[in-house]
Formats: sequence, structure tokens, C-alpha cells
Amino acid sequence: MNNHFKRTGILFVLSAPSGAGKTTLCSALRQKPDFVYAVSCTTRKPRPGEIDGEDYFFLLAEDFDRRLATGDFLEHAEVHGNHYGTLKSTVNENLEKGVDVLIDIDTKGAGAIRACDSPFICDALADVFIMPPSLDELQHRLRKRGTESEDQVATRLRNAAVEMEGWREYKYTIISSSMEEDIEKFRAVMRAERYLSRRLVIES
Amino acid sequence: MNNHFKRTGILFVLSAPSGAGKTTLCSALRQKPDFVYAVSCTTRKPRPGEIDGEDYFFLLAEDFDRRLATGDFLEHAEVHGNHYGTLKSTVNENLEKGVDVLIDIDTKGAGAIRACDSPFICDALADVFIMPPSLDELQHRLRKRGTESEDQVATRLRNAAVEMEGWREYKYTIISSSMEEDIEKFRAVMRAERYLSRRLVIES
Repeated sequence: MNNHFKRTGILFVLSAPSGAGKTTLCSALRQKPDFVYAVSCTTRKPRPGEIDGEDYFFLLAEDFDRRLATGDFLEHAEVHGNHYGTLKSTVNENLEKGVDVLIDIDTKGAGAIRACDSPFICDALADVFIMPPSLDELQHRLRKRGTESEDQVATRLRNAAVEMEGWREYKYTIISSSMEEDIEKFRAVMRAERYLSRRLVIES
Repeated sequence: MNNHFKRTGILFVLSAPSGAGKTTLCSALRQKPDFVYAVSCTTRKPRPGEIDGEDYFFLLAEDFDRRLATGDFLEHAEVHGNHYGTLKSTVNENLEKGVDVLIDIDTKGAGAIRACDSPFICDALADVFIMPPSLDELQHRLRKRGTESEDQVATRLRNAAVEMEGWREYKYTIISSSMEEDIEKFRAVMRAERYLSRRLVIES
């Protein structure tokens, strides 16, 4: 018996309430990528420093609607009045090749993926929720970021409280501590998922 | 919402064919323990350097049978003509306290634990098979160890081939490479298992 294994691709889904450090965590992971990061589409305006095609594909509402009508999105959701969506093509093409994909989406988007009717996607899925240590800490981080008005901070906190209630729906929950710890924990999840026997196939 | 989580204990089961480096791996893991290692009982004779109560509890056949009759074993199996068993008490008492337990057992023992009728144990279980890179490499390692006769090596290799067929039964399969890599991979599994949402409970 010779052990030539290959592996099916994994769809890593990363969610966290705004301010929990999801964007920083993703950027750090993307610096040493052993996966393809699937850039989301959004109709929201770029924040200072955000780059089209790297942070998001920034689409006009009419473009988003057109792609939605064509069935281009694996999932799409409206958050804080803006539309977000993940392109099916990027995800499927990579998973089929046995390449892992990371997507960074909110809890609604993650829920939509979990509920999708593709057994292929369901099997590939490993979803992770980054749980802020507390709402107080989250509030502190949002204020420190200084990109939102007080009203927006209040809205985000209300949404965060709701999102945090959904942690049980995720396969993994990482309680956020330092960014370094969060990265290490997430990387441990990525590694372990790759050793799941059900993801291994014997090469013929 | 304040995030005070606690966690249920995990039963890590480590199996590998003889010569795949299971003992060395276990020793390395036990040097930085964040778990309790459940020492197995056995009726086989100690190898040079093996310490009673650390490597195994070396029991006389009649003692083993007595404990078996009392229902003291979580699992027990006969391998290469010797009896092996894991004490229920060590496993259950630790898991109940939320402390992780590591046991190092053969594929028969692991199968017995998987088939056990305790939902508590089944929920706690995370079993890992260390797969030798090939039977040739395994043969090489067994000869290098030099503790078995040629006949014993042949028997172990035959058994290994059968054991290796059972990798799919394990939740995780780690393809053995260097000892350092194997340790890192096993530690990644240990970490990731601790972030499984289903293992988390909100402290009241």
C-alpha cells in the first residue's frame, strides 16, 4: 500500500461582528496564504485605503443587481443598508481543484452558505466565528477606529449583539484575544480541517 | 452579554501502527501537557526503559482479568497476544471536570471506544490516526528499533497493513513525516477541537 493522498478543497468562512478585528485578521492571514481569498462584492462605498479587487469588488447597485439576476452569487446579503455578495465562480473553481478558499462574510452571509443546497459546498464548509471578549471591548475598538459616527457605532453595537447570539451556528468559535493569538488559533483550525479523514482521498 | 465560556473535556485518541512513532510522539506531547495522559494497562512485559505507571500499568494476567470483570475498563483489546485496557475512572473523572484526556491505543481499542454506548464519551471523542508514509518506511523504522525478531517484525508489518486500512474510521488522519511536523500537526488538531462551538458552554 502506497500512500498517495490528495485532499478536497475547504471553504473557510470567517465571520465576526464589526470591530472584532476580522479585517485585520484576514489581512494577516493573507500575508502567508495557503488558500485563495475570495474577494466579496459590495455596493458600499470604499473606506479610506480600501482597494478595489483586494478588499472588495466595489460595485454600483445596478451592477450588483445584474450579477444577482444572473445567479453569479453563492450568497448575498444586505447589511447596514449595503449589499454584499460572494461570487460562485471563484469559490467553486478553486474547491474543485482541491484549493482551499477563505471568505470573510457577516453572519447573514454565513447563514446563507450553510443553508445552500449544494452538498459540495456543505461538505467543504468550515465556518469560524470570532467572538469579541465582550460588548464593552467591542465598543472600545469601534470608537478607537474612529471611522463611524456615534449613531453608526450604536447601530453596529446593536447588530453585533444580535450577531454574537449566533455563534452556536458556526462549527468553530474563537474567543478573540490578541491579534497574534487569534491568527494562531485560526491557523490551527485551518490545519486541523486539512487532516479530517473525510477530506482525504487516495490517489489512483 | 458577557462572554464567560467554559468547555467540555475532549478525549484525544491517538493510534498508529507499531513503528509509526506513536510512543515518541506521545512522549513529546506529554512534555508540555495541557491534558491528562491516561496510562493504559497491559499484560505485556515491559521493554527496556519502560516505567510502570508512566508508560503502562504493567499488570499480571489475573489482575487484568479481575479489573475486566469489575467493569473497570473503558475499552480493552488483545494485540499480539497481550491484553491492553484503558481505565474508565481516569477518563471519565477528567472529562467531567472539563480536562482533556489523551490516550494512546491501537486501532482495535479506538474502534471499541467509537462503538461504546456512552454519548458522553462519543461527544468527547477526537480520534487521530498517524499514517506511516509507506509500509517500506515502517519496515525500515521497525528494523532500526531493533527490539523485535525478524518474525515479530513480519507480524507487526502484517498487522500494520490491516490497521492502515482503517484510517477512514478516524476523525483525523495525519500522514507521518518528521517527528516535529507530526507533533505540530497533532497540536493543531488539539487546538482546533477546543474551538468547536459544540464543546463550548456559557458559564451561568
